[in-house]
Amino acid sequence: MNALRTDFYQLTMAAGYFRAGKQQERATFELFVRRLPPGRPFLVAAGLAQAVEYLESLRFTEAEIAWLRTLPQLARAGEDFWAYLSEFRFTGEVYAVPEGTLLYANEPLLSVRAPLIEAQIVETYLLATLGFQTMIASKAAVVTAAAQGRVVVEFGARRAHSPEAGVLAARAAYIGGCAGTSNTEAGMRFGIPVFGTAAHSWVLAFPDERAAFEQLQALLQDHAVYLIDTYDSVAGARVAASLGRPILGVRLDSGDLVKLSREVRAILDGAGLRDARIMATNELDEHRIACLISEGAAIDLFGVGSALATSADAPSLGAVYKLVEIESGGQQRYPAKHSPDKQTLAGAKQVFRYRDYDVLGRAGECQPEAGDCVALLEPVMAGGQRLGPLPTAAAARERFKRALPEPARTVRLSPALERIQP
Amino acid sequence: MNALRTDFYQLTMAAGYFRAGKQQERATFELFVRRLPPGRPFLVAAGLAQAVEYLESLRFTEAEIAWLRTLPQLARAGEDFWAYLSEFRFTGEVYAVPEGTLLYANEPLLSVRAPLIEAQIVETYLLATLGFQTMIASKAAVVTAAAQGRVVVEFGARRAHSPEAGVLAARAAYIGGCAGTSNTEAGMRFGIPVFGTAAHSWVLAFPDERAAFEQLQALLQDHAVYLIDTYDSVAGARVAASLGRPILGVRLDSGDLVKLSREVRAILDGAGLRDARIMATNELDEHRIACLISEGAAIDLFGVGSALATSADAPSLGAVYKLVEIESGGQQRYPAKHSPDKQTLAGAKQVFRYRDYDVLGRAGECQPEAGDCVALLEPVMAGGQRLGPLPTAAAARERFKRALPEPARTVRLSPALERIQP
Repeated sequence: MNALRTDFYQLTMAAGYFRAGKQQERATFELFVRRLPPGRPFLVAAGLAQAVEYLESLRFTEAEIAWLRTLPQLARAGEDFWAYLSEFRFTGEVYAVPEGTLLYANEPLLSVRAPLIEAQIVETYLLATLGFQTMIASKAAVVTAAAQGRVVVEFGARRAHSPEAGVLAARAAYIGGCAGTSNTEAGMRFGIPVFGTAAHSWVLAFPDERAAFEQLQALLQDHAVYLIDTYDSVAGARVAASLGRPILGVRLDSGDLVKLSREVRAILDGAGLRDARIMATNELDEHRIACLISEGAAIDLFGVGSALATSADAPSLGAVYKLVEIESGGQQRYPAKHSPDKQTLAGAKQVFRYRDYDVLGRAGECQPEAGDCVALLEPVMAGGQRLGPLPTAAAARERFKRALPEPARTVRLSPALERIQP
Repeated sequence: MNALRTDFYQLTMAAGYFRAGKQQERATFELFVRRLPPGRPFLVAAGLAQAVEYLESLRFTEAEIAWLRTLPQLARAGEDFWAYLSEFRFTGEVYAVPEGTLLYANEPLLSVRAPLIEAQIVETYLLATLGFQTMIASKAAVVTAAAQGRVVVEFGARRAHSPEAGVLAARAAYIGGCAGTSNTEAGMRFGIPVFGTAAHSWVLAFPDERAAFEQLQALLQDHAVYLIDTYDSVAGARVAASLGRPILGVRLDSGDLVKLSREVRAILDGAGLRDARIMATNELDEHRIACLISEGAAIDLFGVGSALATSADAPSLGAVYKLVEIESGGQQRYPAKHSPDKQTLAGAKQVFRYRDYDVLGRAGECQPEAGDCVALLEPVMAGGQRLGPLPTAAAARERFKRALPEPARTVRLSPALERIQP
């Protein structure tokens, strides 16, 4: 299951390692980001639950092996390799930072210590899982920060990169501080509050706005949010006001949101609907939200779609997964590549977090002031099995919120880590 | 199955339409793009196969209905609505342009004619499926155009927005002209050629580059591509050259690709390896490829990752799905919203393609010169069932390639379509 969700070179390398007699060698790979994306003061770790599910369930099906055997590149792989793949399980150890943890460049999100072949095969899936969700959670952190306590809801399912990406984006956005999502499956799978009432097509499907709003109110009562811009936002607000309670509020989706929200607020207040909330959507992101607030928009909830569910200004995180230790013939090596701009730090690492600085050290090294610091990478799997239940999305979100406000943190290398750099 | 992969408001609207007695009303929704993304001369339609699979298999499971019943927003939905959902099937008609077709702003990729509730529920999944794959295929078209006949391979699985997004991105990139992908599952599921041989970790896992290359050659023979930049690209090329045949080529992944590729070409040629190919990777996109070619880089194959698999410069397509006709009580209406910058064209449409212009007309209207034009929207489903096998990714790719070179095409509205605009 899921075994072919990997770059093909992982499988040619697996066959090659096997052929070269390297199936007993153990390797440590670390997943991290070389540079923070522009506009992100830190990362918010996310995606670990899905990564662990993958590692636990990873299998090559018979049909998959039969298909791989048809490929000319693997014609020399040998029968013992195919037998190995049919029994393949992930048997390694995994250390990871809990979801919702804030992280910086070069700090590992996850460390895999496993037979070389196993650690290699899982690279692509781990990057696509942890890289994607961490990217979205980190974007959500800047969007929710811009909202200064106002509610932000993730509305990007339709613009996500496939329906499955939408579900996972909703999860990550929630971890990064959103109050909920429009994504129904994310609500059921991950216990995330779901939001949403009606679209323009609802209004268009009735003879007029009044009929459309009345029908919505009959169903939703104090959950009703009227979308008021189908014809004219101010006229729509008057219709909403005339219907009175029960109502949660109204939504604006076009036009000058500062001006309209203030006019609509006055109309609602004038009708005694001071508790009715104003929601805004329409190509919002952290910059637009900051502008709206600074210009005095009367908006209580922001629905953010494309910009959040695709991290539109930085739609890939650049996460990498690098070999940092290898044990071969009883000897431990600390490999590191020298390619320009792509140097990596050798050695299995630990992130020691002090109040306002981090020390990137060697795994297992002692810190002089151990009581004052937290070792962020925790064991999550051993022998290919998870060591305990993983925190829920809600717990990850709480961890993220507890970490705020984050100080201007510096990250330095420990002397022990410096010492093993080639 | 998949029924909750939708925005929650589709389900509140479904419950509301049901309650309002609208379950017999039929609606036509169209999926299109209001504006082409910057840097895209046209769209390349993709994703229809997955859209049809979804529509055919769409069901609410008992567990899903049980969960929906716990939501306060749906407390007034009524038992008859839950009974309706448990029997829910998509029963509508679908018209769509074949995958690989070039399209422009406002031209529907797909038209759904179905009971209003059904057509509404499927919106989110259809947008996330057709919008995403069309975005990637359209990006692939500009990347492969920049390569001017050189080979482009999609290498973005690790940076895609989830593992599933990577598989679908590989499919769409192939439709848009790529020669293949690194994504193994895309190879098996969609019959796309798979590429890839070894990563830096392969080189680091052996005592030296020579041992690493020899082992790769032993396995892959004339499929072997040596990654030569782990330590020093020129030195790596010399090692590759000294090993001689069999070899497919070498790969550069860092540094000055123009300078290095020419030096490496000279080294390979000097060793009599004129047929060995040079592949380049490292943050490539259409602009970088165009520069490399214009500066005389000796590169035969380009591996493109993040920029392609995330359409990094335009990571959402902005596809919309709009109600354009509704039949209620025997009366046909042509609704259209008036929101600023979001006006839609009412009425079910057809795209008539002439040699160098398109006419956006009404569905079913006759064209004066019918023999010279192709009606792009074809029936693909009726009564919720597909009308025939769908073209493969390879057939879609052929359709795309046959359409090139595309003339500077204009799109105008037919008088019949103009006439029904409110």
